[in-house]
Amino acid sequence: MTDFPQGTSAHTISLLLGHPDPSTLASLEFGAELRGAANRADLFKMLQYGPEQGTPGLIQFLTEKLNHDEHLTLEPDNMMIVAGSTHAVDMIARLYAKPGGVVLVEAPSYADSIHIFRDHGLDLYGIPMDDEGLRVDALAGLLQTLKANGKAPTLLYSIPDFHNPTGITLAHTRRLEVLRLAAQYGFAIVEDDVYRELGFERTPPPSFYALADEQQQVFRIGSFSKTLAPGLRVGWLISSKAAIQHCINAGTTQMGGGANPFAAGLIAEYCRAGHWDQHLDRLRALYQARRDAVLGALAEHMPPTVRWTQPDGGFFIWLTLPDTIFARDVKQMALQEGVLVASGEGFFIQPAEGSHHLRLAFSFAPIPAMQVAMERLAQVIRRLA
Amino acid sequence: MTDFPQGTSAHTISLLLGHPDPSTLASLEFGAELRGAANRADLFKMLQYGPEQGTPGLIQFLTEKLNHDEHLTLEPDNMMIVAGSTHAVDMIARLYAKPGGVVLVEAPSYADSIHIFRDHGLDLYGIPMDDEGLRVDALAGLLQTLKANGKAPTLLYSIPDFHNPTGITLAHTRRLEVLRLAAQYGFAIVEDDVYRELGFERTPPPSFYALADEQQQVFRIGSFSKTLAPGLRVGWLISSKAAIQHCINAGTTQMGGGANPFAAGLIAEYCRAGHWDQHLDRLRALYQARRDAVLGALAEHMPPTVRWTQPDGGFFIWLTLPDTIFARDVKQMALQEGVLVASGEGFFIQPAEGSHHLRLAFSFAPIPAMQVAMERLAQVIRRLA
Repeated sequence: MTDFPQGTSAHTISLLLGHPDPSTLASLEFGAELRGAANRADLFKMLQYGPEQGTPGLIQFLTEKLNHDEHLTLEPDNMMIVAGSTHAVDMIARLYAKPGGVVLVEAPSYADSIHIFRDHGLDLYGIPMDDEGLRVDALAGLLQTLKANGKAPTLLYSIPDFHNPTGITLAHTRRLEVLRLAAQYGFAIVEDDVYRELGFERTPPPSFYALADEQQQVFRIGSFSKTLAPGLRVGWLISSKAAIQHCINAGTTQMGGGANPFAAGLIAEYCRAGHWDQHLDRLRALYQARRDAVLGALAEHMPPTVRWTQPDGGFFIWLTLPDTIFARDVKQMALQEGVLVASGEGFFIQPAEGSHHLRLAFSFAPIPAMQVAMERLAQVIRRLA
Repeated sequence: MTDFPQGTSAHTISLLLGHPDPSTLASLEFGAELRGAANRADLFKMLQYGPEQGTPGLIQFLTEKLNHDEHLTLEPDNMMIVAGSTHAVDMIARLYAKPGGVVLVEAPSYADSIHIFRDHGLDLYGIPMDDEGLRVDALAGLLQTLKANGKAPTLLYSIPDFHNPTGITLAHTRRLEVLRLAAQYGFAIVEDDVYRELGFERTPPPSFYALADEQQQVFRIGSFSKTLAPGLRVGWLISSKAAIQHCINAGTTQMGGGANPFAAGLIAEYCRAGHWDQHLDRLRALYQARRDAVLGALAEHMPPTVRWTQPDGGFFIWLTLPDTIFARDVKQMALQEGVLVASGEGFFIQPAEGSHHLRLAFSFAPIPAMQVAMERLAQVIRRLA
């Protein structure tokens, strides 16, 4: 393993990937947890196959925390532990959408989730977004058009909070409207909510899961990858008891014996000791400072033709270039200046829609490096103008 | 978490599941590895997203070990780290077999792999086995019949070494014959080889992967679940460089950022210190003693109408009851006597083929308890005769 994410080196400043700040990963508390585990008389239990639903202590902690923080009424059977959100997205695609089935995603959406849906042979449609998230009028129109063509979507995949790649949070009223359409047209909502805990100025609106009633099927996905350590590969899935049981009954769940019992056992102890809640407080302050630094540098250096989002949480800022400047040219020239950013194409089903967008991940590189990077990026854009 | 696998209690003796001996899991060496990790200055690297191919140090260790032990010529790009064999089986099904595609499995085969193939909407056919493994004559006949019906299998899923559920090892000559058929009919072989390291009297014959030439596509799957700790969820996949690259390019691999970097990092250090090789020596002796105890108890107690396999490795013995006795009745009555065994139905595509078979896992319960269990099981069978 190197010190740098794939595609970077000591001489590049990476705003490419949604990787957490490396300084936050090996906390003193987590190190102590490891030492504690080594000394536990019941270490062998964490190393055996675990219950298919996942480590009970972690389910208990998470359901109690979410019930407390969000006034939910989760029972343990509304949750299973998953091996990161990847596991959940893949499992839902496999169990709930037949190949050739229709899945709706935000446009733009998370590139790797689009990739997973494509690997399952699903037919994808994008819903345009504005500053309040996915446009419900466009969703309603798309649903009508699909219906007229004899098609019915199975799933809507949404990242409602601090969206990847835009950083936008879906407005509360729109969540209610989307749920009404879900009930009307009979599709389920996959709510990829891995950034929810990372709100800076405000807590996000209630989740789709929290707002749904019995008519609406929601799969809400959470993760420790952004808020503890991605290398542990542990997250959670919340849904109806019947849906969770269906996921528990799946072949992969039965064969694997519970998602990452060892890592989940470590995390359960860490959380129950109160360390995660303290860590979240630190992370919110840390990522808020990172965002402020990048927004400040953008305001200072960017030409007036460039626009960007003002995320109030998460890891990402989304840049919109003037129509005359192509993101892939900016990306290429910025790379020559030692700055790594994501060009917009990969976030869209129709790559051309991303031609004038860049995603900046403010989560990873040191703040002074990101400030330098914004200056260089602005110079590149000015040169291309 | 409880002390007992799902479906058992303090008062039952479980020969139900292929769980490793609990006493082997939390070794002193593994505990020391955990303490060492907590103190490492580069712990944060194991907690970040890892390279998509998997932890390089573990790939290096495994390729060198397999090249040495089996005279292979693996390069690092012939391998990726996976989150247990579950991950590999599921990924191959998703990437290489289209829904409705034909997959061949041994009859009987591993129930959970059958379950995964079914979850992917695949069309399964079974190949009968005898004491030397899958019957090549039956495979050849099935391939002809399928061809006559316009069907071509995509994959053959085989567990060649210390087979689950029968304990049988596929004869060397048959491996060559299967490979010839694979080349002739153009199917790939998925070689689920998670018990290979657990040979007692002898090393298994060369793997399909070792015997294949350029014409034949083999996916060989290995795992630390049976030989270190299933709770870590780490295994490996070996194939052609092109196939490994295809798996690395998959959506789940791209999204997840390498299979379980933290657990794989721990295992890499453990292996490089020589602990795994020493542990394997201990495990072979331990499971051989377990097998001997159960075979001895079977010989002592079973009526002459019952037959069973003589595995020379792995975790399982396969019992064949007389046609008049149904496995599900034996299972039910044995449970009332506090003995838990697997009835054969779940291991077959056509469950009725398993009606007179039982699988005994000699890997988990204490030896004296298993000896008691065999006596009780024999009593149950005599009562049903």
